Amino acid sequence: MRFIVIGGDAAGMSAASKAKRNKPDLEVIVLEATEDVSYSACGMPYNIADPSRAMDDLIVRRSDVFRSKQGIDLRTGHKVMKIDRTNKKVLYETSNAQTGAIEYDKLLIATGARPIRPEMPGIDLDGVLVLKSLQHGRIIKEFLKKSSPHKVLIVGMGYIGLEMAEAFHSLGMSITMVKPGPRLLAFMPEEMASVVKRELSDKGIECHPGVGVKAIDIDGSRLKALTTSGYIQTDLVMMSVGITPESELAAEAGLKLGPKKSIAVDRKLVTSDHDIFSAGDCADAFHVITGKRVWVPLALRANRAGWAVADNVTGGDVELPGIMGTAVFKVLDLEVARTGLSFEEASSEGYDAVQEMIKSRSRAHSHSGNQTIYVNLVADRKTGKLLGGSMVGKEGVAHRIDAIAVALHAGMTVEHFFQCDMAYAPPFSPVWDPMLTAANQLLKKL
Amino acid sequence: MRFIVIGGDAAGMSAASKAKRNKPDLEVIVLEATEDVSYSACGMPYNIADPSRAMDDLIVRRSDVFRSKQGIDLRTGHKVMKIDRTNKKVLYETSNAQTGAIEYDKLLIATGARPIRPEMPGIDLDGVLVLKSLQHGRIIKEFLKKSSPHKVLIVGMGYIGLEMAEAFHSLGMSITMVKPGPRLLAFMPEEMASVVKRELSDKGIECHPGVGVKAIDIDGSRLKALTTSGYIQTDLVMMSVGITPESELAAEAGLKLGPKKSIAVDRKLVTSDHDIFSAGDCADAFHVITGKRVWVPLALRANRAGWAVADNVTGGDVELPGIMGTAVFKVLDLEVARTGLSFEEASSEGYDAVQEMIKSRSRAHSHSGNQTIYVNLVADRKTGKLLGGSMVGKEGVAHRIDAIAVALHAGMTVEHFFQCDMAYAPPFSPVWDPMLTAANQLLKKL
Repeated sequence: MRFIVIGGDAAGMSAASKAKRNKPDLEVIVLEATEDVSYSACGMPYNIADPSRAMDDLIVRRSDVFRSKQGIDLRTGHKVMKIDRTNKKVLYETSNAQTGAIEYDKLLIATGARPIRPEMPGIDLDGVLVLKSLQHGRIIKEFLKKSSPHKVLIVGMGYIGLEMAEAFHSLGMSITMVKPGPRLLAFMPEEMASVVKRELSDKGIECHPGVGVKAIDIDGSRLKALTTSGYIQTDLVMMSVGITPESELAAEAGLKLGPKKSIAVDRKLVTSDHDIFSAGDCADAFHVITGKRVWVPLALRANRAGWAVADNVTGGDVELPGIMGTAVFKVLDLEVARTGLSFEEASSEGYDAVQEMIKSRSRAHSHSGNQTIYVNLVADRKTGKLLGGSMVGKEGVAHRIDAIAVALHAGMTVEHFFQCDMAYAPPFSPVWDPMLTAANQLLKKL
Repeated sequence: MRFIVIGGDAAGMSAASKAKRNKPDLEVIVLEATEDVSYSACGMPYNIADPSRAMDDLIVRRSDVFRSKQGIDLRTGHKVMKIDRTNKKVLYETSNAQTGAIEYDKLLIATGARPIRPEMPGIDLDGVLVLKSLQHGRIIKEFLKKSSPHKVLIVGMGYIGLEMAEAFHSLGMSITMVKPGPRLLAFMPEEMASVVKRELSDKGIECHPGVGVKAIDIDGSRLKALTTSGYIQTDLVMMSVGITPESELAAEAGLKLGPKKSIAVDRKLVTSDHDIFSAGDCADAFHVITGKRVWVPLALRANRAGWAVADNVTGGDVELPGIMGTAVFKVLDLEVARTGLSFEEASSEGYDAVQEMIKSRSRAHSHSGNQTIYVNLVADRKTGKLLGGSMVGKEGVAHRIDAIAVALHAGMTVEHFFQCDMAYAPPFSPVWDPMLTAANQLLKKL
């Protein structure tokens, strides 16, 4: 049996490796358009922040290891042009313009996502950069080395935009951030988002929600962005306005699409064609709380879905329960995390949503080094169930969020969560963990 | 109605305060034998480590605040000598030897626990110290100031012994630790405990499990401990061999006792007398996993039980699900945490226990500052349910344990836990959180 994987990043290589481990005599062919496979994409902002490091440090496993040690027929520089479902073939073109076709028994589409480049004058100018692939990372790093930019305009304030703000800040650059929408980190209550805004401002980073970019132009040796509130001169424009699934191949093959043009898959990662799977940033997922299809491209899901595909291709019967958008990121000295539904999301999903935000401390009363920690919890008044949570603080946020995520997976009520026996020691929390304090306050509103 | 509370520490003052908040016209009298109420006992090792701080910094709320602002009739220096259940009275003696009696409608016994002072020659010598109450803390601090000891022998290697080792280490003292039992931190696999042992040894702390102390004697201006493997000269002996519940009052009043002479209470914190509650380090609890009575005196439970008593005294009907011994402590540069049942505990409880220990990293592949993190998970082969977990590492342990605790409260299987959507960002974990990696490995044994 032949298993073909289109795309050699997290989902694709996880699937290829595990399928081969599960069933060593399976023929596994990976077709990857670029020369890069298996790298830690999320590590790029930190690598960019460190001029002494090569971007290729982020490669987790090199192509030759997949080939020689794992017996995977990994073909880089192979771009798939078409999926012929009738004849169960993929048609490809190599980087030196050769074409070919291979038949598959089972196929995995793991084409990932690409950064959105909004249509506007100047979007293709030198110095207008995006970040998603390792090649993007190399381009940014080369631009920094070659042009020594002093000033950067970051368009977008999502995870990547904020992580890149930290990276550019550590390189001593002057930073302005804009986004068209009025709210920074809209999944959190405004008071919590304002903690992030204050941190940016304390570090000298200008942050203007509600400002869109309409065009970019050359201005002598620099760039000039025309925004909805005037011109901004800059040396570099970092476009971090989101990503979009690479689903064209799937769409042209007539496969069903899900939210935001992602590839629709069932809980076994099967598309609308029972011989074709999809996993990673190109595929959708079910939301654990709402049960609805969502598209939240994150690394853990990509890896997990890759493994599940491998199991299902090799005779298993794995169903994934789904995702909740659990995420954490670091921005300067802050940790920001979320899981499940925000108050606004819960309300628009039809829940009788209620939320509570509390301010607590990261350590015990009178313990030195105490930091403020903010916790927001969202619940459903009708069932008493926890629906989501978010946190921000200088320490203790990143791993706490997983406790809330587990509670959501278990369908816990706020009352049950409040009764959980959590850990306490003075260096790590108050006696009542901030999550418990939030749960206790939220209970009063239920 | 009159609500009398015996003992003014965590459980007692939590109960008194909340009862008064719930029902301002309730008469609330607290009888406390010492002059200290409402202090952060767990903060004492950190306070002792800092000579510039007064021990009284650990007082969370002063007596006069309870009296004037909260309307609680707080009587310090009142030691209760007897509970007369027939006449619903408590008999007390004050610190200036006056006696009296007061009638109660509802009574809470929150007498806490006292450190064990093993019977041996020399146990009462000057310089043989224990730590449980604020007064013990003051005595240690005064001893350090007065005698400037260079060397300390710590007897016991539990949380307090290890936290005190850190405190004495930060004061530049030379430290030897002994305990009669053969294993350090027996709730963890030996390989994980050896990480702690190595950390102690790296910091120059001698650690000898399997060595008991038989007698202590004066040796010139110093002390000399006779151990099962020879004499140890020292300036100070820190006895940290555990605590025992202060349950004599309850026992003499004929109340039913639980494990290790703790006071037996039901889920509403009611003792075998329906007008008498017990909470805090003197009372037992139900184990969430086994459903059995256990005595695990920890701060969160004391506070939580105090609140529940207050609610039940003021017309509520609160039942606490129980505890799981979730705990964390810091020792030097390590964080150590546990929750639920260890492999040995699970086996002796009759489960078909299986465990897996994995070594992972605290940060993503190639992220700087990576530390090793060890995770042990225990499950029941018959049901696939998670039964417990422990962790050790230099970062990221303290709050991760709560995710496992929540999973245990929810009765999750290892499979379900493995499917949880956890947070990932390079500074905080690998893509597969160490807990998920442990769950995945454990699944292979189920």
